[in-house]
This record gives sequence, C-alpha cells and structure tokens, in this order.
Amino acid sequence: MKKNDTADRLASLHIFDSTLRDGAQGEGISFSVQDKLHVVRALDELGVSYIEAGNPGSNPKDLEFFREVKKIRLENARLVAFGSTRRKGIRPGEDTNLASLLAADTEDVCIFGKTWDFHVIEILRASLDENLEMIRDTMKYLREQGRTVIYDAEHYFDGYLSNPAYALSTLRAAVEGGAQCLTLCDTNGGCLPDAIREMTETVVREFGVPVGIHCHNDGGMAVANSLMAVKGGAVQVQGTLIGFGERTGNANLSTIIANLELKMGLPCLPAGKVATLTPMARRVAEIANVTMDDGMPFVGHTAFAHKAGMHIDAMTKNPKAYEHVHPDSVGNERTFLMSEVAGRSMIIEKIRKFDPAIGKDSPVAQQIVDRLKTLEHEGYQFEGAEGSFELLVRKNMGKYKPFFDLHYYKIIGEQPDADQACTAFAQIKIGVDGVDAITAGEGDGPVHALDCALRTALERFYPGVREIRLTDFKVRVLDSKSATAAKVRVLIESTDGEEVWTTVGVSSDLIEASWQALVDSFEYKLIMDVEKRFKAYL
Amino acid sequence: MKKNDTADRLASLHIFDSTLRDGAQGEGISFSVQDKLHVVRALDELGVSYIEAGNPGSNPKDLEFFREVKKIRLENARLVAFGSTRRKGIRPGEDTNLASLLAADTEDVCIFGKTWDFHVIEILRASLDENLEMIRDTMKYLREQGRTVIYDAEHYFDGYLSNPAYALSTLRAAVEGGAQCLTLCDTNGGCLPDAIREMTETVVREFGVPVGIHCHNDGGMAVANSLMAVKGGAVQVQGTLIGFGERTGNANLSTIIANLELKMGLPCLPAGKVATLTPMARRVAEIANVTMDDGMPFVGHTAFAHKAGMHIDAMTKNPKAYEHVHPDSVGNERTFLMSEVAGRSMIIEKIRKFDPAIGKDSPVAQQIVDRLKTLEHEGYQFEGAEGSFELLVRKNMGKYKPFFDLHYYKIIGEQPDADQACTAFAQIKIGVDGVDAITAGEGDGPVHALDCALRTALERFYPGVREIRLTDFKVRVLDSKSATAAKVRVLIESTDGEEVWTTVGVSSDLIEASWQALVDSFEYKLIMDVEKRFKAYL
Repeated sequence: MKKNDTADRLASLHIFDSTLRDGAQGEGISFSVQDKLHVVRALDELGVSYIEAGNPGSNPKDLEFFREVKKIRLENARLVAFGSTRRKGIRPGEDTNLASLLAADTEDVCIFGKTWDFHVIEILRASLDENLEMIRDTMKYLREQGRTVIYDAEHYFDGYLSNPAYALSTLRAAVEGGAQCLTLCDTNGGCLPDAIREMTETVVREFGVPVGIHCHNDGGMAVANSLMAVKGGAVQVQGTLIGFGERTGNANLSTIIANLELKMGLPCLPAGKVATLTPMARRVAEIANVTMDDGMPFVGHTAFAHKAGMHIDAMTKNPKAYEHVHPDSVGNERTFLMSEVAGRSMIIEKIRKFDPAIGKDSPVAQQIVDRLKTLEHEGYQFEGAEGSFELLVRKNMGKYKPFFDLHYYKIIGEQPDADQACTAFAQIKIGVDGVDAITAGEGDGPVHALDCALRTALERFYPGVREIRLTDFKVRVLDSKSATAAKVRVLIESTDGEEVWTTVGVSSDLIEASWQALVDSFEYKLIMDVEKRFKAYL
Repeated sequence: MKKNDTADRLASLHIFDSTLRDGAQGEGISFSVQDKLHVVRALDELGVSYIEAGNPGSNPKDLEFFREVKKIRLENARLVAFGSTRRKGIRPGEDTNLASLLAADTEDVCIFGKTWDFHVIEILRASLDENLEMIRDTMKYLREQGRTVIYDAEHYFDGYLSNPAYALSTLRAAVEGGAQCLTLCDTNGGCLPDAIREMTETVVREFGVPVGIHCHNDGGMAVANSLMAVKGGAVQVQGTLIGFGERTGNANLSTIIANLELKMGLPCLPAGKVATLTPMARRVAEIANVTMDDGMPFVGHTAFAHKAGMHIDAMTKNPKAYEHVHPDSVGNERTFLMSEVAGRSMIIEKIRKFDPAIGKDSPVAQQIVDRLKTLEHEGYQFEGAEGSFELLVRKNMGKYKPFFDLHYYKIIGEQPDADQACTAFAQIKIGVDGVDAITAGEGDGPVHALDCALRTALERFYPGVREIRLTDFKVRVLDSKSATAAKVRVLIESTDGEEVWTTVGVSSDLIEASWQALVDSFEYKLIMDVEKRFKAYL
C-alpha cells in the first residue's frame, strides 16, 4: 500500500470495529479461531475499514488467528493488531508484547497508552515524563518497523478533565513518535456528548493528524458521544458491531453507521452496504451465540414493530408517520405486532401471501380475524410468533395437511425418594400415513423429554427435523392469580441454521402448551422444506 | 393541592414515568391490573413525580385500574391519565374519550396533540386551523374541569423541522387553552442530541411555561437526547423506568436519573433515592416478567462487571480506574469483587431476628453469605422471595426442623388420544413423625396436581395448610438458549389472608423447581403458625 493510500484512508470518515478484541471482553463472549474468521468475513463484507482482531501480547492464541486470517482475501477491511506502549524501564525492542504484536504481521497496529495523570501515577506507577517517553518511543519503534500506527489515548476525556496540559502532552508525544491517527477513548464510558464534542474539537484543532473516537456505554450515551465527536471533527469511529464489550459494552457500530449514513449524510461504508446492516448484525450475533436485544436500534427484531392501534392505522396511511427511517434502508423489516388492536389490514397482507387476489372483505379473512380474536382472548399471542400465525392462516385457507397424527403421549416425572434427583420420561405414539411409531425420551424435565421423544418419532419419516434446534423457550403465566392452576403461554424459538421462527402454545397445563408450540415449530419447518424442494413445481 | 404547589412541581426538574402507558406498547409487555398496582408502588417508592398510568379512552380496562389505585396512598408520585385532543367536528364535552379520561378522576392529565403539518393533513385529515382549535379548546375544557394539564406535542421535532411556524403555533394554542407544561416529543425517535437541545431552547425562550421532553430510542440516543433537552432548559423528563416501549423503546429513565443526579448534579428524586435505582429497576422487570438487559447502564447485572485481567488488576489498586461512578451510588454491585459486601448487612439484619447478639463477622453469617452466593450462582433469586430467604437463614442457624419427609412423588401427564383433553395426576408419599400418608391429586397440569396431592397429605397433620392460597405463580426461563432443557426459576406468592409471602425454586425440571417453591411456601406458613401459637412461651 502506498503512503498516500494510508493517509487518505485515515483522513476520511471510516469505521474501526473491535468486536474481536474489545468486544471479546463482554461477559459471555468467547470466540474460537474459527468464529473469529467468520466474524472477519462478515465485517469485511459489510465494508468496515479496520478490523481490530486481537491482542497478541496478552493473548498468545491470537497469533494462531493472525496466521490463519492471512488466507482470507479481504475486499474492504484491513486487519489491526492491538497492544500497549512498551513497559517501563526497557527499550521497545526488548518488549516481548511488542514482539508478539509485530509477529502478528499486520500492516496496521493500534497501541494504547495512558493519558490520565492519575492512571500514570497510581496504576502504571510511572512518572509523568516516563509515560511520555514510553508513548513516544513505542510509536517511533513501530514506525521504524514499517507499521501504520493508530494511537489509542486511554481515558482521554477523564484525563483531559483532570489535567488538560498533561493529556495534550501525551498526544503530542504520540505525534512526535509518528502516530498517524489519535483516537480519543472514553474508557470508563461516563462522559456527556457535549463535553466529548468540545474536547474532540480541541484535539482536532491542535494536531495535524486524523482523530478517532472510542466510546463505552456506561452512561448509555456511547452512540451519541461517538456522533458528537464526529461533529467535532473525528474521522475514525471505533466500536463493536452490535455493542459487545465489558460492563455495558462498547459503542454500537450498527447504530452509529446507520445514523452517520442515513441521518447525518456521511457515508462510512462502501455504497449500498448500509442496506445489509441488519443481516450482518444478526450474523455476528449468531456466530457469537448471543441473543441480540430485540429493541436494538435499526437492526433489532422489534426496531420497526408497531403495536398501538392508532400507530398502525396511521402507518397504513403513510409509513413515515411513525418511522424515522425506512426499514429497507438498513435491511430490516416492518412488522405489525399481532394483537387485537392491530386489526384486519395486516391480516389481509399475510393472507395475500397465499392468495394475492383475496379481497378485504372476503369471508376467509373474516374467519381468520374471528379465530385470531378468539385465540388471543384465550391467551395466545401472535406478535412475534409468526410461525404459528402462518400455520393458523394456512389451516383456515385449506393450505395445510397435518404431517402426523398423535395417538397419545404420556409423561412421567418422578422424585423416587428425597435424596435422588428428579427424573422425567416421555412416551409417544404417532402415525404417518398409516405407519405408526412409538418412541420414548428422557430429559431435564417433562417438556425436554417430550421434545426428545417426538423428534425421534418424526426423524424416521422426516429427516429434516434433525436440522431443527430450539434456541429459546419462554414461559409466561397468564392469570398468575390462579397460581399452579394458571394458564401459561409458551413461546418456542427455533432455527435450522438459516431461518428463525417462533411458535406459541397456551394451556393451563404447561406440558400441553409446550406440546402445541413444539408441534407448530416442527410443522413450520417441514412446510418450509416442502416449499423449497418443490418451488419449481408450484 | 394548592395552585402554587402545582406550579412549583412543574417548574423544577422532575421525572414523569410512562411505563404503564407508553411502556405497555412494547412487544411482550402486558400488565394486569394487579401488576399495574405493583408498578405504581415501586415507582412511588423510587420517588418519581408523575406516573402516567393509562389511556382510559382507548383502553376501557384502565378505568378499573384507576378505581383500584385510589386505595393506595402515594408518598411521592401523582397519577396521570393520558388522552388525546378532542376529535374533529365535535365539542370537547361531546368527546367520549375525554369523558373516559375525566372518569379516571386524576388531578393531572396529559393530552397529546399534533404538531407536524404532514400528520395533521395526512393522518388526522384535518385542516391546520382545525387542529389548532382542537388543541386550544381541549386544554380549555380540561382546565375548566379542574385538571392540571400537561400538553404532549407529538412529533414536535419532526414537525418543527418541517414547518417551524406551524409547530410553534400548536404550542401557542396549547398555552392559550391553559396547558401548564409543554412536553416536546421525539415520537419517531430519530433526532440528534444537538438538534434536540437547540429546538428545546427555542421553546423555553418563546413560552412562559415549563417544558418537558419525551424521547424514543430509534436512533439509539434517547438518553442523550433527553439530557441535552434538560441542558436546553427542559424540566420534565418523560420515559419508562427500564426503557419499555414500542419499537426500540422509550427513553430509559433509570439511565437518565443516574446521569442527572450523579453526572450533572441535578437532583430529580427525593434525597437518597438514586441509591435504590437498581433494586427498583429489577422489581419492575420482575413484575413485567421481562429479562432486563444485563448490560443496561447503571442497573444491569454486568454494568459493573470487570473481565479484562488488566482492568481487574487496576481496579484492585483504585476502583475509579475503570468505573465512571461507584456502583453503590445506584444500588448496584461490582461483580468481580465479593458481592458479600452489599449482601452482608441485610443478612446480618435477618440473622438478628433469631439471635440479636450476633456479630458482623460471626462464622454463621459468613456461612449464610457463602450459601447465598452459591444459590444465586445457580439461578436462585432472593430479592422478593423473602419466604425462602428466611428458611435459608433458619436452616443455617439450626432454627429449622422439617415438617415432613418426602418419600417420593410421581406425576403423570397424559394426552390419551388426539381428541381428548390432557390430564395430569400426581401421587405423593410423605411421613410426619413416623406416620406415613399417601395421597393423589389431579389438576390442570402436573404442578397443580402435585400441589393438590401435597396439600391433602399435609392437612391431616397440619390443618393450617388449608388457609394457604397460592396467589401468584411466575416462571422465568434462565438460560433460554438451552430451550426445553433450560433451567427455570419459579416464584410462588402465597397468602393465608393475613400475611403474603413469596418463595423460590430453581431447576432444569419445572416440576422440581415448583416443588421446591411449594414446599418452602407451606413450611413458611407452618413456621408462622408455630410462632403465633407459642409466642407466649418463647
């Protein structure tokens, strides 16, 4: 890469993702080397400029990743290895962490150093001058080794507030050493947006190098803080795609990217890529095996979900009535939550999937509306249970035939004596086209046992059920005042690795409610399989 | 309430919670009347100034709540009923929604009206002048009815950007009609903080009444937007305690309150109350049966959780190294440190019930703290399960003797064939002082059957169990990713007509978790009976 390319890249607005480094500090986040490679592919496809992928000095396993990742040809992103300024009292060339960093063999590196006088003295236990030396000669050394160097000023804002002259002198030391970008970190995550903007402006004015911003969400304002820093002149935005990170997480880049591109008119991804934000965010969540917050701005499952009757009514007149951007612009979808209030127009929309010619006042539409109301009155909830809703529509439109007949099931739970563990068994008999299957299962509790037994019974006839993984199970007691006789609603979320669907069951017997949701889930999957296989013939 | 009180209350910084109204528009949120009363108690205890509790015009069920809530004496909060400006073409006195609003019989009401010319014309389908009339005479009518009126200017910011003169004229109409507070709404949730601040400043300058702010989180900046509005002069902050709301949710008041009080030095709750923020937030989540986001700023479970080795090392040197505020300041806990620090004083207090002389560092206290930690790690939760907590303390202090021994129980659930209803039976064998009892029960589901069987078995020995009524039953799936094999937590609330107590059980088998909570509930009641009967002798 020519020098000017680097300078241009760093000087124009760009996204720096740290899902694999700072994001991995989040509770419950742990990436294998394979996971990391998948995340790199997703981020590159999305089009971020930098992927900070590891800290080889503090995590030797990261070196394996850096070897493997070389085999991937990246379209948009450059990989960054992360480390800290050299240790006290030695030269950079003697620092084993820096040696590991260089061994990662990335053209770009990101080095953090101390800004806050309190941290230098109490945590690093170095003198203020020594810290400046550590910053300066680490930068110099890495430049001599041919690296492009981004300097992360840890606790920049807290440091500046504590001792502005010293904070600025740490940045000066970095620039003197050759840092090509100064990234200001709100490490403790507690700053306010107007303060961030002002302090960023000061740095932009003071130094002749590109400035970056790195925020944490402890005050709930990491997104606003990042955007205000951009208004203050920052051109590099660091964060993690869906906000992974220690404590309350890092700045959520999916939210930031959407705001930059769609609200502020500042492109930061290759043209058109912002429209892939939702699937990419979900792919990263899937790789990390983490449930993404449904309400996550722009990319969450409910980000464009409307429930209030009045809002839905207005939305049918004009979608901008209650949407700040169009869901398509970020690859998300508008959903109307299935509730009584929501009413007929959305049901018609669903029905038209099966019969585009159907009229608003058709008897079948009325029939489905009535059925929906009855079921909702009984405690079913179809908002978010689109699997069961589709089955309901199919059943009422004659587009459904059961995949199996249940002869019986039986579950037994037992605490054989006070000291032994509880056990649960299920036995089931089903029939498919006149052929019967009797199977049994055991599990953690009766529902799990029943799930195992049904799966075994169906596999014989429909191998596709093997692909089904139940990914979420929710129980809601509806009339909790009836205590143990209360009605419960069970929601089951399933996936086959490609699609995700949710199904619902309601009963005063938890086993039966779970059974309903389970059967809907299996049938929904089998219908999808049929549709895919026979699309050409339909 | 005297006029000046109202004026003073509205003129100084205050919190307006809409968990029960706008929050109820969130996906999966649905409150019973009892739930709503519990939320009102929690919010009042926290010390918010206003609780917007329903929209009697659009939801007739809310009237029942407004009748019931009158029985609660509130310390800090005032209840608000919500509605909209009168419909087109009629007088306010003829509007049935306004009649319902008045029937709620609250001193304070909040009325929303249209600001955005596009909404007036395309959604409301009224003329711009007619909308002004609707605002003006609705305010006037409600003031004549003796109400304090807050005016919510829907889509204020989008409206102002589209047609500033018209947006301001809607506010003028509200003030002319007698509105005592003008609350500016970012209804679509897509505005940026600097823009919100500037537009708020304009309104504060223009009108002589208190100004409020009501933000949604579609751009991920509802907290920052609210705080910047306060910097622009807003004194009322509307939101929902833990961010419930349609789409991406409303502004999260727990985050806003903590920032106002701890970052900006602006008290908005009664003195000391900010330190109860975390338990209150969790209580509201519990009532709604919603899993709170672990990473929620200030109040989330990981908000002060440190993972990075380097950070933990620094934290042991000085906690401010990687924390923006002290977790105690919001009633939360730092996680890598022993949570015993926070838990201990509460435990000591309980222990002293049994042994007033016990010291802070007694071995039994340590033992209970350790046991509690183990159980919490397994998924138990004793916040709100005071029945089980007291039994735990008793068991560790030797102040407990089982009331019965379990020999075995067995539950059978059966769907005998596809057309018949599910049935559930339980059989149980217990022993009391060498006398055995074998009983059976049938019920709506296996837990209910087990409850019936256990009750019948115990009644012979302890007639007091007849007085126990289970009044609430909650199921929470803990690691929902394990789907039907997931661990569940069951909370059971019971009463004997005098006392109310809650008990907890955890297992990957729902039957066993329910069994634990059931046994704790029965034993707790029997202990209370013993205490009452023999008090004179103790």
